[in-house]
Amino acid sequence: MGDAAADLLIADGRITAVLPGGTADGSLPLLADGAGQLLLPALVEAHTHLDKTLWNMPWRPNTAGPTRWHRITNEQTVLRDEIRVSMAERTGALIEHCIAQGSLHIRSHVDAQTAWGIGHVEAMLDIRRRYTDLVDLQLVTFPQGGMLCSPGAVALMEQSLALGVDVVGGIDPAVIDGDPIRALETLFGMATRFGKPLDIHLHDLGELGRWEIERICDFTQSHGMQGRVTISHAYALGAFAPADLEPLADRLAALGITILTCVPMHFTVPPVALLRSRGVNVAAGSDGIRDAWGPTGNGDMLERAMFLGLRYGWSKDAQLADALDIVTHGGARALALADYGLAPGCQADLLLLPSENIAEAVINRDRRRTVIRRGRLVARDGVFLAPR
Amino acid sequence: MGDAAADLLIADGRITAVLPGGTADGSLPLLADGAGQLLLPALVEAHTHLDKTLWNMPWRPNTAGPTRWHRITNEQTVLRDEIRVSMAERTGALIEHCIAQGSLHIRSHVDAQTAWGIGHVEAMLDIRRRYTDLVDLQLVTFPQGGMLCSPGAVALMEQSLALGVDVVGGIDPAVIDGDPIRALETLFGMATRFGKPLDIHLHDLGELGRWEIERICDFTQSHGMQGRVTISHAYALGAFAPADLEPLADRLAALGITILTCVPMHFTVPPVALLRSRGVNVAAGSDGIRDAWGPTGNGDMLERAMFLGLRYGWSKDAQLADALDIVTHGGARALALADYGLAPGCQADLLLLPSENIAEAVINRDRRRTVIRRGRLVARDGVFLAPR
Repeated sequence: MGDAAADLLIADGRITAVLPGGTADGSLPLLADGAGQLLLPALVEAHTHLDKTLWNMPWRPNTAGPTRWHRITNEQTVLRDEIRVSMAERTGALIEHCIAQGSLHIRSHVDAQTAWGIGHVEAMLDIRRRYTDLVDLQLVTFPQGGMLCSPGAVALMEQSLALGVDVVGGIDPAVIDGDPIRALETLFGMATRFGKPLDIHLHDLGELGRWEIERICDFTQSHGMQGRVTISHAYALGAFAPADLEPLADRLAALGITILTCVPMHFTVPPVALLRSRGVNVAAGSDGIRDAWGPTGNGDMLERAMFLGLRYGWSKDAQLADALDIVTHGGARALALADYGLAPGCQADLLLLPSENIAEAVINRDRRRTVIRRGRLVARDGVFLAPR
Repeated sequence: MGDAAADLLIADGRITAVLPGGTADGSLPLLADGAGQLLLPALVEAHTHLDKTLWNMPWRPNTAGPTRWHRITNEQTVLRDEIRVSMAERTGALIEHCIAQGSLHIRSHVDAQTAWGIGHVEAMLDIRRRYTDLVDLQLVTFPQGGMLCSPGAVALMEQSLALGVDVVGGIDPAVIDGDPIRALETLFGMATRFGKPLDIHLHDLGELGRWEIERICDFTQSHGMQGRVTISHAYALGAFAPADLEPLADRLAALGITILTCVPMHFTVPPVALLRSRGVNVAAGSDGIRDAWGPTGNGDMLERAMFLGLRYGWSKDAQLADALDIVTHGGARALALADYGLAPGCQADLLLLPSENIAEAVINRDRRRTVIRRGRLVARDGVFLAPR
């Protein structure tokens, strides 16, 4: 990601050397000619809901009612009763689209709700097997309909983890589950018992949300979960002056808790610059991509980086580099990816695109992307190449 | 813009008939095969600053300081002292890019500030002549550095109008000009004397901004300027509960005042749905496109419609159709375009794109656009065709 031209040598799916441009042995086979292009590590989609997507289907007008409970029950009707396209088709097509845009590491929350029992989890585990050579798919048990308040949800979450789901997920311990301390005891207990990290959706607002974040800090500390907890959304942190949040930011940093934002334009957002300046890891995701909750989203994490710029009023190159860092290294830290980056020894998961520099790449989101997965070409000119 | 297939007959640059799909005389020459595509009237870019753009230049890191005055003086340094690419080259390339994306009607504010005297105005008038067959370019005298507070600005504005600029422009009568009533007297006096409409940048916030909007209503009424005034930005209207604004919205509607938003993601925005529901015309624009103020913007008014959806949390097809209406008919009303639309008799200024419907067009922003100007093909597949 520096400015100088470089030749990357790749063997066995890893970067073996980074040489000054034009100095590599010309007799080596050329995987991709990146001359004049910008090289980035593959993008990280750190929060989405692939099991819900209506991607690759004819347009479906949104039919949800106004509240969150309307949207949850509407989605149950849509996915269970209305559509006839399998999750494998919808989600598979979206994963290929994400790969073609340069995202090779995806954390996807998978519903563990009684409306579909273990069905979504099993289907997503199948899909993960199908795409295992092409993308890192990290799955989170997600109690969309609530955990404590939804009989059977805890058992489904545990069953999901036993089947191979990677991360324990939670949602709004206060407003949805109604008993924040017991909800956190359940989540952290489950995470500790299964030896899994945690990723909690926290939409709860204002003082309530901030109080819950403080309690998540307490539990992270008491359960020895440092570096293994993500708080997704964290709208509440947008309700305070950044300076008021410095002690909390310092605590989040010390505990290695990631704050993840999907960069909503019509909710408050956490003060990303303040958080990063205090050492908190920040990651980003698309949230739902064209699903029964809403039609927006296209899985392009460069566009999400541009959204960070718009949402926070970032116009300087260094700020736009921060935006890119959030959708690359920030996501990699949240997902605890091993050997991520452009250094020798890193996995050769790469994105090449015709951009002058990082700031321009974020602003222009050029779609002519070349994507390399473990040293193999998987997309060219933004088009997914079927595995050979 | 209905759902049914249609054949459009075009003669002398106008739509002469709209027939059911497949019924037109097959021996007529085919201008564009829109089979299965969506037909829209050309998009309307109702607020931009073409004279400032750094389009078609190598990437230039933003160097402005933190305040608005820093940005104004920084821009003077950049445009006057640093760059060597002429306005004709920068702005011409951007206009062609806008055309290729389907915008055939553009209102551009042109600096009338003493830093460059009448230079920007003369250059933009030249550019307008050069592109007159391809795009409607409506120019506004814009006192970027203030009007009352900047000696010589009023004379420059009057000189601009005498040279052929179409609209009187203003900026923040209170915070920038320091004397809101005298500023409005000057603006409305000038508009009345020259027989021109008005478009006032209003960034002033909260109660102050709302009070100024009320005064703009007073002046619109007393000067008989009904239907000829636009208030651009109007951030202040985002500071109040929509219900508190109903009487003011009714007054704006009765006076035919347009509220224009560039859909900023990090400022408050006017309550567009409330305004429209009370009959206020709403238009939208890109604001600056890659200039010394900031690097964002690409002139794509379909993307701007998608931004409206994101900013206001619109997910229903009817809401996304509202977003499209704002960047088409809303803009056309603000610019007082004659014979705009898809009905027989309208100018044949058209956009065709491979979208299933309006909502999908707004969300996906497909770039494979075919653009027709007065019955002539001017862009295909999103690529500008040089005039023949």
